[in-house]
Amino acid sequence: MKKVVIIGGMAAGCKTAARLRRLEPDTEIVIVEKLPFVSFGTCGMPFFASGEVESFDDLMSTAWGTVRTPEFFHNAKNVKVLTETTCTKIVPEHNFVEIVDKFGKKSILSYDFLVVATGSKPIEPPFIYPQSERISFFHSPTDAKKFRHLAEQGKISNATIIGGGFVGCELAEAVTSLWGIDLTLIEKENCLLSRSFDPEISNVLNSLFQSNGINVLVNTIVNQIEQKNDTLIVHTSKGNIETDYVFLTLGVKPNVELAEKSGITLGACGGIYVDETLRTNFENLFAAGDCIEINNLVTHKKDVFALGSLANRQGRVVADNISGLESTFKGAVGSISLKVFDTIFASTCISTSCCYKDSISFSFACASFYDRPHYYPEAKVLFAKALYEKESGRLLGLQMCGKGEVTRYVDIFTVLLERGATYKDLLDVEHCYTPSHSSPLNPLNYLGGIIENQERFGITPVSSVEFEKYRKEWNIMDLRKENEIKEMPLDCEFIHIDYDNWRSEIQKLDLSSRILCVCQKGPRSLEIAISLKHLGAKKVGYLAGGLQILNSAL
Amino acid sequence: MKKVVIIGGMAAGCKTAARLRRLEPDTEIVIVEKLPFVSFGTCGMPFFASGEVESFDDLMSTAWGTVRTPEFFHNAKNVKVLTETTCTKIVPEHNFVEIVDKFGKKSILSYDFLVVATGSKPIEPPFIYPQSERISFFHSPTDAKKFRHLAEQGKISNATIIGGGFVGCELAEAVTSLWGIDLTLIEKENCLLSRSFDPEISNVLNSLFQSNGINVLVNTIVNQIEQKNDTLIVHTSKGNIETDYVFLTLGVKPNVELAEKSGITLGACGGIYVDETLRTNFENLFAAGDCIEINNLVTHKKDVFALGSLANRQGRVVADNISGLESTFKGAVGSISLKVFDTIFASTCISTSCCYKDSISFSFACASFYDRPHYYPEAKVLFAKALYEKESGRLLGLQMCGKGEVTRYVDIFTVLLERGATYKDLLDVEHCYTPSHSSPLNPLNYLGGIIENQERFGITPVSSVEFEKYRKEWNIMDLRKENEIKEMPLDCEFIHIDYDNWRSEIQKLDLSSRILCVCQKGPRSLEIAISLKHLGAKKVGYLAGGLQILNSAL
Ligand SMILES: Cc1cc2nc3c(=O)[nH]c(=O)nc-3n(C[C@H](O)[C@H](O)[C@H](O)COP(=O)(O)OP(=O)(O)OC[C@H]3O[C@@H](n4cnc5c(N)ncnc54)[C@H](O)[C@@H]3O)c2cc1C
Ligand SMILES: Cc1cc2nc3c(=O)[nH]c(=O)nc-3n(C[C@H](O)[C@H](O)[C@H](O)COP(=O)(O)OP(=O)(O)OC[C@H]3O[C@@H](n4cnc5c(N)ncnc54)[C@H](O)[C@@H]3O)c2cc1C
Repeated sequence: MKKVVIIGGMAAGCKTAARLRRLEPDTEIVIVEKLPFVSFGTCGMPFFASGEVESFDDLMSTAWGTVRTPEFFHNAKNVKVLTETTCTKIVPEHNFVEIVDKFGKKSILSYDFLVVATGSKPIEPPFIYPQSERISFFHSPTDAKKFRHLAEQGKISNATIIGGGFVGCELAEAVTSLWGIDLTLIEKENCLLSRSFDPEISNVLNSLFQSNGINVLVNTIVNQIEQKNDTLIVHTSKGNIETDYVFLTLGVKPNVELAEKSGITLGACGGIYVDETLRTNFENLFAAGDCIEINNLVTHKKDVFALGSLANRQGRVVADNISGLESTFKGAVGSISLKVFDTIFASTCISTSCCYKDSISFSFACASFYDRPHYYPEAKVLFAKALYEKESGRLLGLQMCGKGEVTRYVDIFTVLLERGATYKDLLDVEHCYTPSHSSPLNPLNYLGGIIENQERFGITPVSSVEFEKYRKEWNIMDLRKENEIKEMPLDCEFIHIDYDNWRSEIQKLDLSSRILCVCQKGPRSLEIAISLKHLGAKKVGYLAGGLQILNSAL
Repeated sequence: MKKVVIIGGMAAGCKTAARLRRLEPDTEIVIVEKLPFVSFGTCGMPFFASGEVESFDDLMSTAWGTVRTPEFFHNAKNVKVLTETTCTKIVPEHNFVEIVDKFGKKSILSYDFLVVATGSKPIEPPFIYPQSERISFFHSPTDAKKFRHLAEQGKISNATIIGGGFVGCELAEAVTSLWGIDLTLIEKENCLLSRSFDPEISNVLNSLFQSNGINVLVNTIVNQIEQKNDTLIVHTSKGNIETDYVFLTLGVKPNVELAEKSGITLGACGGIYVDETLRTNFENLFAAGDCIEINNLVTHKKDVFALGSLANRQGRVVADNISGLESTFKGAVGSISLKVFDTIFASTCISTSCCYKDSISFSFACASFYDRPHYYPEAKVLFAKALYEKESGRLLGLQMCGKGEVTRYVDIFTVLLERGATYKDLLDVEHCYTPSHSSPLNPLNYLGGIIENQERFGITPVSSVEFEKYRKEWNIMDLRKENEIKEMPLDCEFIHIDYDNWRSEIQKLDLSSRILCVCQKGPRSLEIAISLKHLGAKKVGYLAGGLQILNSAL
């Protein structure tokens, strides 16, 4: 009988087992999992920490309420799960692994196929910190339990998160919203979530946190953590912070020690190297989930994405291949999203910092728009920034935020990205339109049009973070109506020409000067910028996304 | 100087003008519009009728509050708009049109390029009805005004809508929700919105209307409307209905009389025939919007879609081509959506009735699932039905409903459809995943997996509307837990085998009989259906989408 051993009993491992069982009723399937849990909903941890998800078991239950214990796996799926059992060695040449159970008992499991699904592990901080019940990562289910235990006893009134990436930001809301804990969030880069978001969008997150009482410190280096009784002192480049609890959320990296020492090849990004069938350098040895590196379908380089959505899909591919079906995982672009105090932030593929890192010559469009026709009572503002390759027009990435249907458009963009689409393809995106939740032109049509106009007419898009520089050197022309200006004043010298009558006032302008058109959301200024070009102006730019984005006025 | 005349001043016409002005600052652009309004937000009419949008002007305003009058077009865009002016004749051979203004004064406009954007017109009912201030279409802005005027005066306590298509259904909520009017909605087909939705999904809409007090009559033919004083009597195949107001919403058709009598070629669907550049049979004569027929990108036949989203995009293409840029409109699949009492219904491309009509050999998958992990407190149920071509696996259409992110997935599906994707491509759809608004596998991954399993293992999907037939002829096996069965009992004979322990109870079953597996949402029964096949069962089916869909239990 065919025997398959899977190391790691979470998303990738369990999906492999479930799919394989469907394909092969008789194959022996064994999952080896270090922790006392199997098939745990890791991504739900922030909501357990916050108390929104009440019981720990909820994160291990099926939709019909059965807890996914080893017994459940045995009875319903005929899959053997060994929890509290660690795989300590893989011997690929002889098709067996060594395992150690919770009593320290060693044994050997032979296999026909092995699947490594050991996931990721949290990045260790570069600074010194004590072992403490008041300091934890936020990675393993036990981390969430540890925090919630103290929080429930009222022992934390003040916490600090070090690392403003995805997990840190999700946790920030969880910690403050239900427990009312005072929070400081520390990030060494110049903005939160800097891998996925440019400052234009990230600034919105920052304001949102601040206005919900969270103290956000960017550009801040932590040097050390000390403990004095129940108090921790975080030494930072901006001074010391006293706090009751510290989360270390500096990111994750592939958990590959076991694989590496067993002769499984790693790739340039530090993950297990696999081909599109998710095979390692051993024919009968597969790997899936956070521990592998995969093709980035936009940069065409290898990349590491620690995403549950991908881990699940990869598990399926591994099972198919074990079963002799030809199945491939071509890669991904790494779409992410998070919801913070009712505002959704989503991003797909690369941001400006990645373009610089990879020396990609790019340009961008920023936009703010209503998610529905502005006359619709519940219309909400969305912000977007799209990047594209300067030469070819190929799409590189999209970032959006707002209270409306943000993920909808980021997901459509993802499908296009993965097919090598250019900005011109955005003009052709068909969508369901009805005023109660969209506009006749969707945000992607709109972004496509903006880029097409910028490129065709040679208009310089000036992003909200560049505005500070431009306002000193360019002539600013505000195209809004008086009442709009009063509501959101422009804090610099400007010429006022109302868009509605601009043709009759245009002589106010010196067309040989450098002119930066400004309005509330962008369309009026882009349109006038084009007209000025037609009229012979040499250097024309516009504030992309308008004052709305400049003021993070979601 | 180049001169462009546009007939019709709504979505398609105005978009053409705006884009053309950007491309060509000096071209003379004239819009001829029969109504006293220009660039009116027709799609917002239901919300004006309901009172949600307070003023009529809101539907004609820019985002910054300026009403789009002819003066506005003149001042801001240098576009001449002639309202209350009808084009009565086109003479393509000599490049001029005849127009008549509101005083009956005729004149002639010559052109270099002509754009026909005359839109659609409501289908006339096949039955007799009187001219009455209490009967109207719901097509022109004045129709909305007429109704609201009477409603505001409290003169309508009871209304009837004839025609349960898109406009009829949108209007139904508008009429009842704010004005508290008793409403009957009459449809001649066996379900509402029958062009876009199959009964499984449409039934949900029906229940939703009924539970909000709307009287829905399907399979009902209207024979005549009579008026007695202020009361109308609607004679139907199911009896007479007395009512204060009747809306005739039997659909629309391209408004092409003017074009036709001028020698412009029409197509098989009755719309103006255009090529991909949106040119008619005359080189310098374009047409766009509801008056044309276009390629259906899935059936590869011509089709007529009266959709504002498409009209807008077509306007752009026309302007580009007039300006000498090569631009094409390749076609569409006709995605639509509507929101009814907080539930969203969306559909893309073809439904079962269209497959039958076009003799397409197809199969389907139905599913109900949470839009987020079930542990997440606000998780909501979504229903979906996907159709695919039986032989090739090519996707044909998707219908979804629910309170969650319905349009998100329908839009992604649309992008795939238009690229000729098969159900296997659904497995590879990458999405932004975070528990606050999605699941690690998105609905499209999930549907792809369902179809793959159905096809691979030869499992018969039984839809909720087929269940009535099957339950008499097949052995029903309920796989739910006792408490689930108690909450939503299955109203027929069945064998109970709890999924969690099915392996130990399987001897209860006669594998040579025809077995139909049933559970709450579908996954358990599909999984067991596969296992039964492995165990040697010959005929196995499952209730697709589970009892949740059968009971329209959103
Ligand atoms: C707080 C948090 C929030 C997240 N939110 C999201 C989100 O919103 N969206 C998203 O897409 N992703 C999210 N993720 C990431 C997601 O959880 C991971 O991508 C996913 O869990 C990866 O699954 P995996 O099976 O590859 O690895 P893991 O889930 O890391 O599982 C690997 C398992 O292997 C076990 N193991 C390792 N080595 C051994 C060994 N030698 N012997 C035995 N067992 C071993 C480990 O104990 C672990 O249980 C989040 C992660 C965290 C921590
Ligand atoms: C109540 C309602 C709700 C809708 N909701 C949606 C929705 O949610 N989503 C969606 O995608 N679509 C929706 N639509 C459809 C959408 O409004 C149309 O697709 C869109 O208006 C088409 O634009 P058009 O410019 O082609 O035609 P129209 O908007 O019909 O404009 C054509 C114009 O041409 C004028 N005209 C015609 N003949 C002449 C002539 N001889 N001389 C001068 N002028 C002439 C007419 O007066 C008219 O104003 C809805 C329609 C209605 C009625």
